Amino acid sequence: MTISPAFLRRVAAAAAAETLPRFRHPVSIDNKLAGGFDPVTEADREAERAIRALIVEDYPDDGIHGEEFGLEREASERRWIIDPIDGTRAFISGIPLWGTLVGLTAGGRAQAGMMSQPFTGELFFATGEGTYYEGPGGNRRLAARDTTELSDATLCTTTPSLFDPLRRPAYDRVEAAVCLPRYGTDCYAYAMLAAGQVDLVIESGLQPYDIVALIPIVEQAGGVITTWAGGRAEGGGDVIAAATPRLHEKAMALLR
Amino acid sequence: MTISPAFLRRVAAAAAAETLPRFRHPVSIDNKLAGGFDPVTEADREAERAIRALIVEDYPDDGIHGEEFGLEREASERRWIIDPIDGTRAFISGIPLWGTLVGLTAGGRAQAGMMSQPFTGELFFATGEGTYYEGPGGNRRLAARDTTELSDATLCTTTPSLFDPLRRPAYDRVEAAVCLPRYGTDCYAYAMLAAGQVDLVIESGLQPYDIVALIPIVEQAGGVITTWAGGRAEGGGDVIAAATPRLHEKAMALLR
Repeated sequence: MTISPAFLRRVAAAAAAETLPRFRHPVSIDNKLAGGFDPVTEADREAERAIRALIVEDYPDDGIHGEEFGLEREASERRWIIDPIDGTRAFISGIPLWGTLVGLTAGGRAQAGMMSQPFTGELFFATGEGTYYEGPGGNRRLAARDTTELSDATLCTTTPSLFDPLRRPAYDRVEAAVCLPRYGTDCYAYAMLAAGQVDLVIESGLQPYDIVALIPIVEQAGGVITTWAGGRAEGGGDVIAAATPRLHEKAMALLR
Repeated sequence: MTISPAFLRRVAAAAAAETLPRFRHPVSIDNKLAGGFDPVTEADREAERAIRALIVEDYPDDGIHGEEFGLEREASERRWIIDPIDGTRAFISGIPLWGTLVGLTAGGRAQAGMMSQPFTGELFFATGEGTYYEGPGGNRRLAARDTTELSDATLCTTTPSLFDPLRRPAYDRVEAAVCLPRYGTDCYAYAMLAAGQVDLVIESGLQPYDIVALIPIVEQAGGVITTWAGGRAEGGGDVIAAATPRLHEKAMALLR
């Protein structure tokens, strides 16, 4: 069963109704991990509730796994994976690079996904036949660019401190080889890769809900996305996305 | 002579007409510094031309200093300082955290400034009586927040690699003391400080046109902005902005 763009637009709007009024306004911030800084906002919880309600209404047999409220109907072949606000640190800093991520897997493989950024009014989605953008500048089909050399590439990561001491040297090798590194990008980086604006995204320690929605967006724009070991990225962990298979190969050689 | 918000809105619109159509579209990228990566786009040049034209029309006696076309009427007491696109690396990466900066000095001291981000439709300005925001979420007067402890602070910098080996340990001491560091923010960080979203911005190697427009935006929202040595920041170089004098003092103690 194909997912319609109209359904994803409704999901994005329902999430935006919860996130946007709370963006740049005082919100309740919990501290999920004692000692760490992992804010969860009301926006996060209410957006996930709203997204789950729409999924249950239209796809009552599907499983749902969200960052805030866990897993329902885990025996289902199809599973929706939700991160209501990817980039909560950007959110609480007033920076519009966070996004609402909703992905769909079938048999564990990502089939469809959306990323919406309601402050900028952007929606990126892929439902099986390409990656599309709707928002300022005009709606269009997206394509990753044809970069094959690391020395021509723009590389994004949220912060190099994401990488533990074992992984940091591998990341640093790639960073040293590219033309331009950019930090602070969260999910926005994968959307920009699909849009042909950046060439590589390298991250570590991801949860499935951080990445599943973004896999179809990258793949259906012609990009490649895998774990650092070269496998499917649906499980999260260490992830690399590249604009072309050649570029992916070259970056992988430095990560190893 | 006070600058009217209406004039700044016209400047922002004229710049946007040159920058926005070229954002996320193929643009000509020069390489200003041989060996470095310092892109200058057509958007940069055309926006500066458009801004200069408006200034010359309304304030024919004032000096103008822009990133792209240098200094005119340098003997004038008043001088407009223009960076048509601050954050060209963000611009070419498709990331809407760049901004058009226009500031006004009198006797070398920043009096008024604006930062506009046309993709998000945001305008931040200060003309002598407070800092104002116009854009999504509603127009309002801005105020920096009342953070006084480093352990409660969000700190922004564009990238830690901005700091040379002499300055990096100083920056790192502050980063280690704060609650949350954010990278990749360019001029947007100062606007977020004025908006009460972040508490500290620390940068190095700035040109006057990178910072003059942002000084009134920070100061007229109640924030503090100086060089790392504690002097006025109009000359650029090493700059620190803080939400409160107490927080500024505490960060300065670690920078020394």
